[in-house]
Amino acid sequence: VSHVAELVAVGTEILLGNIANTDAQMISRGLSELGINVFHHTVVGDNPERLGKTIALAASRADIIITTGGLGPTADDLTKETVAGAFGKKLNLHQPTVKRIDSYFARTGRKPTENNYKQAMLPEGCHILENDWGTAPGCAFESDGVTVIMLPGPPRECTAMFHNCALPYLRSRFVDGVLVSRNLHVFGMGESAVEAKLFKMISEMKNPTVAPYAKEGEMFLRVTAKAESEQEAQAMIEPVAAEIYSVLGDLIYTDKYESLEDTVVSGLKQTGITLSVAESCTGGSIAKRITDIPGSSAVFMGGVCTYSTASKTALLGIPEQLIAEKGAVSCEVAEQMAVNVRKKFSSDLAVSVTGLAGPDGDGSGLPVGRVYVALACADGVWCRPLDLGSGRERIRVSAANHGLDMVRRYISGLPVVQE
Amino acid sequence: VSHVAELVAVGTEILLGNIANTDAQMISRGLSELGINVFHHTVVGDNPERLGKTIALAASRADIIITTGGLGPTADDLTKETVAGAFGKKLNLHQPTVKRIDSYFARTGRKPTENNYKQAMLPEGCHILENDWGTAPGCAFESDGVTVIMLPGPPRECTAMFHNCALPYLRSRFVDGVLVSRNLHVFGMGESAVEAKLFKMISEMKNPTVAPYAKEGEMFLRVTAKAESEQEAQAMIEPVAAEIYSVLGDLIYTDKYESLEDTVVSGLKQTGITLSVAESCTGGSIAKRITDIPGSSAVFMGGVCTYSTASKTALLGIPEQLIAEKGAVSCEVAEQMAVNVRKKFSSDLAVSVTGLAGPDGDGSGLPVGRVYVALACADGVWCRPLDLGSGRERIRVSAANHGLDMVRRYISGLPVVQE
Repeated sequence: VSHVAELVAVGTEILLGNIANTDAQMISRGLSELGINVFHHTVVGDNPERLGKTIALAASRADIIITTGGLGPTADDLTKETVAGAFGKKLNLHQPTVKRIDSYFARTGRKPTENNYKQAMLPEGCHILENDWGTAPGCAFESDGVTVIMLPGPPRECTAMFHNCALPYLRSRFVDGVLVSRNLHVFGMGESAVEAKLFKMISEMKNPTVAPYAKEGEMFLRVTAKAESEQEAQAMIEPVAAEIYSVLGDLIYTDKYESLEDTVVSGLKQTGITLSVAESCTGGSIAKRITDIPGSSAVFMGGVCTYSTASKTALLGIPEQLIAEKGAVSCEVAEQMAVNVRKKFSSDLAVSVTGLAGPDGDGSGLPVGRVYVALACADGVWCRPLDLGSGRERIRVSAANHGLDMVRRYISGLPVVQE
Repeated sequence: VSHVAELVAVGTEILLGNIANTDAQMISRGLSELGINVFHHTVVGDNPERLGKTIALAASRADIIITTGGLGPTADDLTKETVAGAFGKKLNLHQPTVKRIDSYFARTGRKPTENNYKQAMLPEGCHILENDWGTAPGCAFESDGVTVIMLPGPPRECTAMFHNCALPYLRSRFVDGVLVSRNLHVFGMGESAVEAKLFKMISEMKNPTVAPYAKEGEMFLRVTAKAESEQEAQAMIEPVAAEIYSVLGDLIYTDKYESLEDTVVSGLKQTGITLSVAESCTGGSIAKRITDIPGSSAVFMGGVCTYSTASKTALLGIPEQLIAEKGAVSCEVAEQMAVNVRKKFSSDLAVSVTGLAGPDGDGSGLPVGRVYVALACADGVWCRPLDLGSGRERIRVSAANHGLDMVRRYISGLPVVQE
């Protein structure tokens, strides 16, 4: 049986452009993994008439409705009464939720107002989705063959409640067996080139499915299998993943972690290798992304951002003459930056970046987008010369990706630059 | 006359959760500034039947429909034929667009395929919105009292075309006079506290309006006036802005720039003051944000990310004994980091951060969220001790904001720390 879900976001702040409807993206991704179709997203304001009509329309064309937002304590928040009303249901005061609200406020040392107890009014006969991330509980009920789930709007709460409460609820009702996914992250080949290479798999395979996803400066392939058990699903994924590996080889940098920086930090931890960085045009982006990962302090010694030419000499001891002869944006300077920052931080490895992120050039005649990324270890140093096109932000992200990619290739014993 | 617009995004990739509908946010914000109401956003897949119904529904409840997506060259892209069809219009080949496509491909050294010319098929009698940012033109037409505008989906193209083509088109048709906004950016007081202080203005003023917007770790107030001329609107905004300044004072850091980093870089440029940074728990975030601003190289000398304790000594010469006595996370170490990095980079000012971003503590017994931010100039050094709560990302953003705020207060001749 094929199911259709419709997402209804309730919130004037989305219609005013104050925030984007990121809850819908997060939920859609989860539903897609369950194999549940989504044909419509709707956003409607905190207006009972328009919300009521939206719910009635959704009920006429979907068998699952998921609402986000409007569960708060203020007069504006009217999702529960309106949605319940659309299905002829009343709201009842739910005592366990009253107690949860009391203990939440006691814990945070504040006093609840009468308004807060509005959050304990829930549709009669509903299944409560407890909110461990805030005060507004969600709920689910079935009526007239339609399953309705209501979740709070704030993305942090909505994400946690969707994954911990709504997904298990949906899985138990609408999914026979289990769905298991594996993400194969690719760096060094664009989405369309990967799609072209794997066109047959992507367009024809039904179980497992293979789907490409774009990511900033990179992409990943998601292989999803549906089976009776987790073990069986993994066994179905195995040969498909193996075939993709045979096509893309070491362009796949992980099938386990979330990102290049996550892969790099985990790889450094496993090998006991330490890292430092010297950044010019990326201006601290690599350091920022590595330190985004909790626990990176075990392997990341630190870095320098030698943004001015003088600081390349003052901080890293790059000879003024070398800069004068070769230019601050050159392979020679990149390599020297990596070699010297490695010594400064007494780290095993060091990566460096120098380049032109634009919008203006540096007067040297080099094009915007020209970047040199270097990696140094005790035994040598390598440099990737790159032309990364245009767009300051894009150039900076891509240059940082290349730096991280060189580190992960080194750790994995792969060639760091093209032979 | 009050107008109602409905946004219809066409794209299966949004329904799959591949991307968020950020076009809708961008367009909603623009419409809100024009004073045009938005009551519904809808997302629908590349499916002619469902898209046709969605357009018919939108036409029944709005007098402006803006579609995004589905203008590309592939068979999937069917927005133009479906939307035109919903209003009984045919598509015609538009010769000037054929020429534009030819010259676009000639310029990029590629050859157009038959598919590309599909983009030159446009609704009869429509107004063409030329696309200088891609190959798919947009268009606009009026039918049955409804104005329909179609824009391409890729956010970069959609944003440029909305602001350069659709907004002027809408303004000329639906807005009498002009709307002018001024954003007052606030750091150091949260959205709800600001709302409470300015409750009467925010809830009661009609022209100009005052609206609060949340931003990561900060907030801003938008004052919008509608008048016959730009000059008149500015004159209406003036006393309202002055009243807000009289309430919030120097918590308002700009009414001109977009962000703290933008304000800081502009302030440094105007005063000719140079800056360097020493970061521990923010791990390069301040350097990254400053170098996000084009032209920051004129005033930003660079920074160090002394993530490991040893690197604080090796790179910045912080005495091991001071770290042993006071702890790496202490006011004394923060101040010394700022003083020493300033000398290293020969900059006029230096800002430093040391703290615990979590998720784990450092064994010192200090709570996660404890951060010290220091600012050094030739004549002295100041330190802000902070407790920034929980959440690694939130702590890091907030700590970086405080560092930038200290710099902007110094440049503006304001006290850098609370007296």
